[in-house]
Amino acid sequence: MKTVYSENHHRQHGRGELTDGYLMPVVEKPERAEMILARVKAEGLGEVVAPHDFGREPLAAVHDAGYLDFLENAWDAWEAEHGGERDALPLIWPVRTLRQARPENIDGKIGYYAMDAGTPITAGTWQAATTSAKVSLTAASLVHAGAPSAFALGRPPGHHAAADLLGGYCFLNNAAIAAQWLRDQGVPRVAILDVDYHHGNGTQAIFDDRADVFFASIHADPRQEFPYFLGHADETGSGAGEGHTANFPLPWGTEWPAYAEALDAACRRIEDYGPDVLVVSLGVDTFERDPISRFRLSSGEFPRIGARLAGLKRPTVFVMEGGYAVEEIGVNALGVLAAFEGG
Amino acid sequence: MKTVYSENHHRQHGRGELTDGYLMPVVEKPERAEMILARVKAEGLGEVVAPHDFGREPLAAVHDAGYLDFLENAWDAWEAEHGGERDALPLIWPVRTLRQARPENIDGKIGYYAMDAGTPITAGTWQAATTSAKVSLTAASLVHAGAPSAFALGRPPGHHAAADLLGGYCFLNNAAIAAQWLRDQGVPRVAILDVDYHHGNGTQAIFDDRADVFFASIHADPRQEFPYFLGHADETGSGAGEGHTANFPLPWGTEWPAYAEALDAACRRIEDYGPDVLVVSLGVDTFERDPISRFRLSSGEFPRIGARLAGLKRPTVFVMEGGYAVEEIGVNALGVLAAFEGG
Repeated sequence: MKTVYSENHHRQHGRGELTDGYLMPVVEKPERAEMILARVKAEGLGEVVAPHDFGREPLAAVHDAGYLDFLENAWDAWEAEHGGERDALPLIWPVRTLRQARPENIDGKIGYYAMDAGTPITAGTWQAATTSAKVSLTAASLVHAGAPSAFALGRPPGHHAAADLLGGYCFLNNAAIAAQWLRDQGVPRVAILDVDYHHGNGTQAIFDDRADVFFASIHADPRQEFPYFLGHADETGSGAGEGHTANFPLPWGTEWPAYAEALDAACRRIEDYGPDVLVVSLGVDTFERDPISRFRLSSGEFPRIGARLAGLKRPTVFVMEGGYAVEEIGVNALGVLAAFEGG
Repeated sequence: MKTVYSENHHRQHGRGELTDGYLMPVVEKPERAEMILARVKAEGLGEVVAPHDFGREPLAAVHDAGYLDFLENAWDAWEAEHGGERDALPLIWPVRTLRQARPENIDGKIGYYAMDAGTPITAGTWQAATTSAKVSLTAASLVHAGAPSAFALGRPPGHHAAADLLGGYCFLNNAAIAAQWLRDQGVPRVAILDVDYHHGNGTQAIFDDRADVFFASIHADPRQEFPYFLGHADETGSGAGEGHTANFPLPWGTEWPAYAEALDAACRRIEDYGPDVLVVSLGVDTFERDPISRFRLSSGEFPRIGARLAGLKRPTVFVMEGGYAVEEIGVNALGVLAAFEGG
């Protein structure tokens, strides 16, 4: 399969995320994509192509217009207020008892549009995030044009970003943008399967009330793990989307047998849905040595994910999400992709 | 007037708050109360007395039981998970599109119960916060017993804390706890006037739907200033409390003439309400050299606030809130208090 890639991801390189009570170096860093690209080339997965520009429309089809304007201008506003020495981070969030009122100044606006303190906005965030969306759209367009699969090797990742909310290292929801674009090309039914260790809260929220995009996710139980506040088993969609969301939360320490069972259950739900195209939010932070995660999949088990996905026999767009064990991220991602190709 | 004070406030000494994109030293620090105490003594405001214990009931009359349990045990849970080297800070908040689901582990729980990343929980937070509430209750009890006024010199402050939410350096809402305790002693009508630079979002939220406690606040416009998401002029209370909240947001750079006008308007609203007791949330961060605030009151103008409050001729409980210009905090706070006594 072709891999879509752009060097622009380097423009997003945050300096600190609030974790464990301090600003630790951001684990979502450029080396991640470099390691995967090196492995794509080493294993000869297929041609590496550059993304096309799709304009702002496909972004606006998923994200709030005010949010996009904010994201485009946030760094300049931050720099004008605070200088450019430090990344932009929010300090307060409009939680319960507070109003969803959009403040006028940058510190307030970041809090309004963020869900966490781990997703720094930098000078290059807008360029990197929009490029990552283009990477995802280009992969979707390859599949729409007839390729059986394509790999969107972009970063920053996207699945935590909701229509007007950044968080979890995500700004634009690349998987959702790809899925929506496919719908807008006339593809009747799209399914998104999110195998990242963390629940894809943004993707779920975007398609929560819709029947035309099915969302399934296998992830660490939100009662124990980030993003904490979405991804429970009882969330099944709302309104027209009722029954079109399926969450498979698993406990810390999950190993392959329990994971495989959830994966199979998710795949059977997708088979029942019968999508025309499958979008896979591909996180490999389910790996046993991931520095911020607590599942226990070995590198030898990632190909089994790829093989199961191949069994769905659907045109498939792989969109890169998480995975923070930089040394093994390429091996693990390619484990899935190469097995899919061979499956 | 008597001042209620306990050394226990030293137990709250956070190491870092997320501001301007980095963990800056917490400005809400023990020296604040020490400087005010020194000035209380230097000016001979009156006897300094220790707080009494009122048990948990007056706290539970304002705060959610689960929140109190969390606050009491948060540090131990944090230390067990992360060690005691760093203060406990949240990393994600249950904003829109996310659920108000209470996670099981400490990182999730802090996010559930917090509104910002500037209010570190430390080993001594519970002891300091409950002592600060006792200080406030003791001052209320002095006034209830017949004293014309009393000064609760406690910290951490309280007015940003809602029923189940910490933030803005606040854990327990000392002013709300005092007001509620007075109500529970049979005092028919209590008014709270909040003159802190920042809107008292917690206090407003606690009494939003009630007619028996009137809330008025003069503060920096939330469109520009923390806490951003509450304190707008159109918030006037809800349900039975409709018309019993009055906000006077003022722009950055506000000087005495505009401030005096808002103060007078707030006082006239309180006169109309006719409270039996007045609780003043006394912040002096309206001071022109406050390091985190942008009003321009001079030290010579704080006595004019005290004189206007004296004009209300109500039994008055002063509860210390903000003020971060440590060198002048005593002079400014005593400016209000001494003028009130003399007024």
